Amino acid sequence: MCGIVGVQGTERAAETAFMCLYALQHRGQEAAGICTTSNGRAYLHRATGLVIEGFNDTVLAGLPGETALGHVRYSTAGGSGLVNAQPILVRYHKGDLAVSHNGNITNAQILRQELEREGALFQTTVDTEVIVHLIARSRQPTVDEQIREALSKLVGAFSVLLMVGDTLYAARDPWGFRPLVVGRARGGWVVASETCALDLIGAQIACEPAPGSILKIERGEVTHLEPLEQAGDPAPCIFELVYFARPDSRVWGASVDRARRAFGRQLAREQPAAADCVFSVPDSSNSAALGFAEESAIPYELGLIRNHYVGRTFIHPYQKGRDFRVRIKYNAVREVIDGKSVVVVDDSLVRGTTSRGLIALIREAGAREIHFRVASPPVISPCYYGIDMPTKAELIGATHSIDEIRRHIAVDSLGYLSLEGMHRAVAEFGPFCDACFSGRYAAPLVDLEMGRPASTRC
Amino acid sequence: MCGIVGVQGTERAAETAFMCLYALQHRGQEAAGICTTSNGRAYLHRATGLVIEGFNDTVLAGLPGETALGHVRYSTAGGSGLVNAQPILVRYHKGDLAVSHNGNITNAQILRQELEREGALFQTTVDTEVIVHLIARSRQPTVDEQIREALSKLVGAFSVLLMVGDTLYAARDPWGFRPLVVGRARGGWVVASETCALDLIGAQIACEPAPGSILKIERGEVTHLEPLEQAGDPAPCIFELVYFARPDSRVWGASVDRARRAFGRQLAREQPAAADCVFSVPDSSNSAALGFAEESAIPYELGLIRNHYVGRTFIHPYQKGRDFRVRIKYNAVREVIDGKSVVVVDDSLVRGTTSRGLIALIREAGAREIHFRVASPPVISPCYYGIDMPTKAELIGATHSIDEIRRHIAVDSLGYLSLEGMHRAVAEFGPFCDACFSGRYAAPLVDLEMGRPASTRC
Amino acid sequence: MCGIVGVQGTERAAETAFMCLYALQHRGQEAAGICTTSNGRAYLHRATGLVIEGFNDTVLAGLPGETALGHVRYSTAGGSGLVNAQPILVRYHKGDLAVSHNGNITNAQILRQELEREGALFQTTVDTEVIVHLIARSRQPTVDEQIREALSKLVGAFSVLLMVGDTLYAARDPWGFRPLVVGRARGGWVVASETCALDLIGAQIACEPAPGSILKIERGEVTHLEPLEQAGDPAPCIFELVYFARPDSRVWGASVDRARRAFGRQLAREQPAAADCVFSVPDSSNSAALGFAEESAIPYELGLIRNHYVGRTFIHPYQKGRDFRVRIKYNAVREVIDGKSVVVVDDSLVRGTTSRGLIALIREAGAREIHFRVASPPVISPCYYGIDMPTKAELIGATHSIDEIRRHIAVDSLGYLSLEGMHRAVAEFGPFCDACFSGRYAAPLVDLEMGRPASTRC
Amino acid sequence: MCGIVGVQGTERAAETAFMCLYALQHRGQEAAGICTTSNGRAYLHRATGLVIEGFNDTVLAGLPGETALGHVRYSTAGGSGLVNAQPILVRYHKGDLAVSHNGNITNAQILRQELEREGALFQTTVDTEVIVHLIARSRQPTVDEQIREALSKLVGAFSVLLMVGDTLYAARDPWGFRPLVVGRARGGWVVASETCALDLIGAQIACEPAPGSILKIERGEVTHLEPLEQAGDPAPCIFELVYFARPDSRVWGASVDRARRAFGRQLAREQPAAADCVFSVPDSSNSAALGFAEESAIPYELGLIRNHYVGRTFIHPYQKGRDFRVRIKYNAVREVIDGKSVVVVDDSLVRGTTSRGLIALIREAGAREIHFRVASPPVISPCYYGIDMPTKAELIGATHSIDEIRRHIAVDSLGYLSLEGMHRAVAEFGPFCDACFSGRYAAPLVDLEMGRPASTRC
Repeated sequence: MCGIVGVQGTERAAETAFMCLYALQHRGQEAAGICTTSNGRAYLHRATGLVIEGFNDTVLAGLPGETALGHVRYSTAGGSGLVNAQPILVRYHKGDLAVSHNGNITNAQILRQELEREGALFQTTVDTEVIVHLIARSRQPTVDEQIREALSKLVGAFSVLLMVGDTLYAARDPWGFRPLVVGRARGGWVVASETCALDLIGAQIACEPAPGSILKIERGEVTHLEPLEQAGDPAPCIFELVYFARPDSRVWGASVDRARRAFGRQLAREQPAAADCVFSVPDSSNSAALGFAEESAIPYELGLIRNHYVGRTFIHPYQKGRDFRVRIKYNAVREVIDGKSVVVVDDSLVRGTTSRGLIALIREAGAREIHFRVASPPVISPCYYGIDMPTKAELIGATHSIDEIRRHIAVDSLGYLSLEGMHRAVAEFGPFCDACFSGRYAAPLVDLEMGRPASTRC
Repeated sequence: MCGIVGVQGTERAAETAFMCLYALQHRGQEAAGICTTSNGRAYLHRATGLVIEGFNDTVLAGLPGETALGHVRYSTAGGSGLVNAQPILVRYHKGDLAVSHNGNITNAQILRQELEREGALFQTTVDTEVIVHLIARSRQPTVDEQIREALSKLVGAFSVLLMVGDTLYAARDPWGFRPLVVGRARGGWVVASETCALDLIGAQIACEPAPGSILKIERGEVTHLEPLEQAGDPAPCIFELVYFARPDSRVWGASVDRARRAFGRQLAREQPAAADCVFSVPDSSNSAALGFAEESAIPYELGLIRNHYVGRTFIHPYQKGRDFRVRIKYNAVREVIDGKSVVVVDDSLVRGTTSRGLIALIREAGAREIHFRVASPPVISPCYYGIDMPTKAELIGATHSIDEIRRHIAVDSLGYLSLEGMHRAVAEFGPFCDACFSGRYAAPLVDLEMGRPASTRC
Repeated sequence: MCGIVGVQGTERAAETAFMCLYALQHRGQEAAGICTTSNGRAYLHRATGLVIEGFNDTVLAGLPGETALGHVRYSTAGGSGLVNAQPILVRYHKGDLAVSHNGNITNAQILRQELEREGALFQTTVDTEVIVHLIARSRQPTVDEQIREALSKLVGAFSVLLMVGDTLYAARDPWGFRPLVVGRARGGWVVASETCALDLIGAQIACEPAPGSILKIERGEVTHLEPLEQAGDPAPCIFELVYFARPDSRVWGASVDRARRAFGRQLAREQPAAADCVFSVPDSSNSAALGFAEESAIPYELGLIRNHYVGRTFIHPYQKGRDFRVRIKYNAVREVIDGKSVVVVDDSLVRGTTSRGLIALIREAGAREIHFRVASPPVISPCYYGIDMPTKAELIGATHSIDEIRRHIAVDSLGYLSLEGMHRAVAEFGPFCDACFSGRYAAPLVDLEMGRPASTRC
Repeated sequence: MCGIVGVQGTERAAETAFMCLYALQHRGQEAAGICTTSNGRAYLHRATGLVIEGFNDTVLAGLPGETALGHVRYSTAGGSGLVNAQPILVRYHKGDLAVSHNGNITNAQILRQELEREGALFQTTVDTEVIVHLIARSRQPTVDEQIREALSKLVGAFSVLLMVGDTLYAARDPWGFRPLVVGRARGGWVVASETCALDLIGAQIACEPAPGSILKIERGEVTHLEPLEQAGDPAPCIFELVYFARPDSRVWGASVDRARRAFGRQLAREQPAAADCVFSVPDSSNSAALGFAEESAIPYELGLIRNHYVGRTFIHPYQKGRDFRVRIKYNAVREVIDGKSVVVVDDSLVRGTTSRGLIALIREAGAREIHFRVASPPVISPCYYGIDMPTKAELIGATHSIDEIRRHIAVDSLGYLSLEGMHRAVAEFGPFCDACFSGRYAAPLVDLEMGRPASTRC
């Protein structure tokens, strides 16, 4: 998963991009990058780690210009280090071309093989790189048409920002899998993955480009180019609401906090529990737990404390000890739990490893009964549209029955939100892609069907 | 403020110390250090920044032995960088001597002048250094007696750990201002500032040494040496419960979470408000806000989201803009706030700067009415016993009436917890030092009375 | 300028490459890189600065395999930092392709424009990158033929090493501008810019590939592929003997030390001086100065001491002071110079800035008369075949008469080696390219003739 | 060994100190430090490694004031890292006190024990630290007298600089073992270990303070305080001339280059050899080799090339191979050596390890006969006055006969300069301490005689 931002028409655009990336940090902590254009020349800085680790005043001062592209990259198995960091910057016959991408192109391997056969040289393993090659090879006369032609060949998920000279392009795939929002700030335009980035810089939200949109932003004006051909119903990702987006963002028109609250209330109706208190696995489940507490009228408590000093490169002197990774991050509040029957609400359950460790911690703190409630359905299929998930074999919801899972994580009762209940809770903002919960894939999985491995998502 | 840890009798004691410092990180982010003894030789590593930044497997492997001392240091105006980092390690005629200290010695300047007059050389500006000089100059024949004599000369606040060879000493001042707790783990003993450190390593809590205690720990045994002379009633710091300690710790026998919940309930009784919802300034006020919500039966909400990626060295490209430091850390959830009358609960109010910025943020998110509630009394006097606070002139509670403060931070109503109410809420664990709220100082402020500036606390 | 090395068929080839790069450090201090192949996968590490700064045991351990390519890059105005560092590694349809290049391709801009027009994307500004694009786009069926076709399109100077999987290719341009030597060591083959690299690892020198050669080395065997078409007489660079190569290397069949000695002797015959002593500008002129002393029978002295701790990034607190850059590097030995008539021998004179500073230093040390002798002719034309030189306007030999130069650097007499004398001194190893001294360019300057700027050399 | 510098009365004194340390880099590469005073406050920066690595414009800008102290420290077995770096800065009752020391105090352990018994705390293991404790404990009323009293208690070698506020003190031990020179520059005074430091900043040499001198420099004036009591004949170190000092310095009134030239000529007279050429082990033996060539009329050659890119932290992938450390540093020039009878001149022979490796290298390059000549007598006793040398057991001159050494390093003949010949060559500048060559120690070895280990020299 990734976060992206584009800025056009503001002084010191790199600073605005930096602020937005900071607000989008939850979408990717592996690497961060900013590329700007000034007087026709591109400037690029990328660094591993957090935005605030890789950028400072000196670095930003070296990124002049009024147009900027930014990116934060999620940690993925395949590509550690800088090699897959974005923005990607290349030189082609129309000048410098930079790209920031969030999503996963499902025919990237097929396209890449064709391009390599024609002599194209690749620098990275990410699917994003096929986009720039397709643009460079297009026979269309204008940059606008080259971009449109290139994007037309892609299948799958992409919210993508492109910079050619002082012009910024923003596009979404025809299904609209990944979010993108346009705002007005500091006399120019800002395009970002989530509204929380616009909030931080005090921008006015202008619009959420429709699926298939291609926007061109230059000299302070936004032009809607001819959109990409429609490919079926829009399919925005429901997992953004369940877990990924920040609770203070609006995604798909919905307040993320309100959506999670609705999931929690619906969960309480579907999977009630008699208990002394309800608490969340902080911080991503706070809203859902509060919704559960409201609906069930069971008192809301703070049963787990999270340590926010956990670094990305944490060392584990004692890591052989079971559940250590959980303990380093959470501690149970004995006074809340001891002798009580508790409801623990989590937003989702993927592998089950963390949940199992958490339950052990809560049990040690003296819980009499533990009722585990998950504010989304079982995850049964990997996402091929941009969310980083393990293989099907590692998804506990795909390989175990609910009762097996209950025994595995060792709780007294386990309840998931139903697929229908989830959709009903946010019905006014749908329909959604729910492939990870249902196994129904909205866009063709071209590479997989042709026997190629899925490409590295972004 | 600082956090301290001592380990005796466990294999690879540095790793245990490291884990405990990690859990005590909230007590100090400026610098961290660990000193160990192996085969009569001392090993020391100190670094600026977080524990996980300054220590890794290689560093820990270079700190051998079964006895260790650790320290995390709070950022203070006086002493940036490593020069004032701890543990302090010196060589004296009985061997290597290391010390970790939490507190503030109120006669340190007087003692230092005497020592300097006798030819003592100082390396730092922290009051801790007088302790090692007093020990080195003692004419007492044994280390035990040297330590007791040295500590007897101190006035003020100190929870202190000393390491001489493989022997660990732990002592508290006669008033017991700062916390200290002893636990049993991994076949040895661990002494730390808070129980959350013991929880992380799975230690059994053994005792909280009484004010004035001197413990000697060697070869797996704990001996209580003759305590320091009593100096009045015990005066444990109530601000640890109000703000400083972690909510999952037990301090002064009280659960910090439960104490804050009690403050919040008492606050609701004393300063009720008619409102649509209650929310906290996360994370330190969560417990108090929940207590307020319970008592007042006003719904608890998540109205503010905190960004945990704020680094210590954050750069501020736009910082001239008012309230920027607040915005970088918090965002308001418009859907919770818009059109509502809200109660905002904070744990304490020191300068008023952050509160003012937060209120502006909440106001922009559409709040109709804002009722600000503080779960402690006005801070009117600086702490001279270890808590880092600004001068009296900067304490808004000392210089403005409550109504002036209300207008300054621009809220519809402002209510503080009363001094009596605060004490009543945690009466069973007291009495307490409440100097910052009352101006009544339990231990003499010797340096100040003699016209010297207060020394650098730790 | 650059140094290159290739290794095939030795265990831990990266270590051998590292050692050779270390010996070739004088050919480039800006950046260093090594790329290896193991089990069909390429591993790359590049770093700015010296070889010993960028590589250590850990880095080398991360570069497995029996085939390696290395590169050290000279500091050039155009491309600071890592972006132009080599080896360049790309992925094309035949697998991973890495390249290390020393030289300067004179039709690189023309080729690049054609490639960009066809949709090729460029990552760097160095001419080397056109080579990999030409290979990737070749329609030839085998890698051997693709490489031959690509190299056939190049005009200018290139000693180039290519790695495709476990196969190493080594090639020289048809004029043979830049050196390359093949040796046998550790059971495999090593190809390097100079023999001093082979000496360090104890290799046996096998051959110097003829101009136009293409060698293929795999599984311990060297195959000579069909050479590139001849393009005129061989034109090895005489400046390698004058200044660039290490004195303990053999280049063009000549001992560099002996060649410089011969230059010095010839200089003494052509430009005699009556003086008390002769000394060199250390270390590059030591051999020539000794030759001058021998032939003239004037005593050889150590009149200048060089400080070898000058870093690449030296700071200049007092740099406004004239000649400071010279003083930081050299000091005059007063006892040698005071009251004497001295001959100072330098290898070449490019801008005149350093010479002027040195002469001031020698004058201050009390020299009565200074006779400056240069062991090569005036530099009057820039090199377009790989040597980093300033523009013609900055070449003092191109813009000033010898008498003007004498006055500018303020010496009593100035004498250069004649063009004929230089050639005569090393006649048995020639003929040579002497373009920088004569203005006669052996290979066409295609880009310049077409009005393009010269490309970034390597 | 170490290099020291003090600056008083110049603007931005830290920059002057930095330049001087840069020129003194050959006296110590382990660590560098500068301490300044401005408006009564001391500023200190120390770093491991070279001066140019540890200091830059930003660091120097943080060291304000017109008085500065600097130090470069040699790598010694005992104290890696920063802990023993200098200047040492302490706070005592008269203010901030900084010290830079070159030498070795032979009663430091005895003094330290007494000080520790009285309660003094030590931070380092270097003997320098006793000086500051003695000053702090002195009962004398003025700083001048405190310093004189403290220095009076020391036995052994010390050239020492002290800074108290804006006042600089410079002192030499009564034997005058280590060099010190005073110059005038930039409107103030500069005191440094060698004249090459004064040359670099364009200073006028004012005087070499006599053994036992104590100079006080403040407000632009130099006062000679009452000197330390005489303790026998002056005994300046002859090894400074043999090896340690830079050839362009004047030490003990002698030009180092001329002294080495005289050693080489005397060596040629005492130990003639019939050979085709003479060459040096560069760079420290260049002068002596040239002297040998002059006297013997055998042609001087450049037979060995030294690689100056050898870093302090060089890694050794192949280091098991014999002689590798030598090969990384030197290469033999085959054309000079092959088939020849050669004289190799080295300045001194300590362990014999390097010589043995060098001879193997020269032998491989084809030497027919090797005559090894050493321009000083056999080293038979460790230095206790500041030169870093191995123990007696490791000194090959102490444990082997000359013929055994000849066989060990495998040369055809071996000749040392005689003790008498060495003294005769520099007789006009003596007498000298020659303890390392003669075993006669000028100052008492107090610690050793009392059974204590020698302290860490500086």
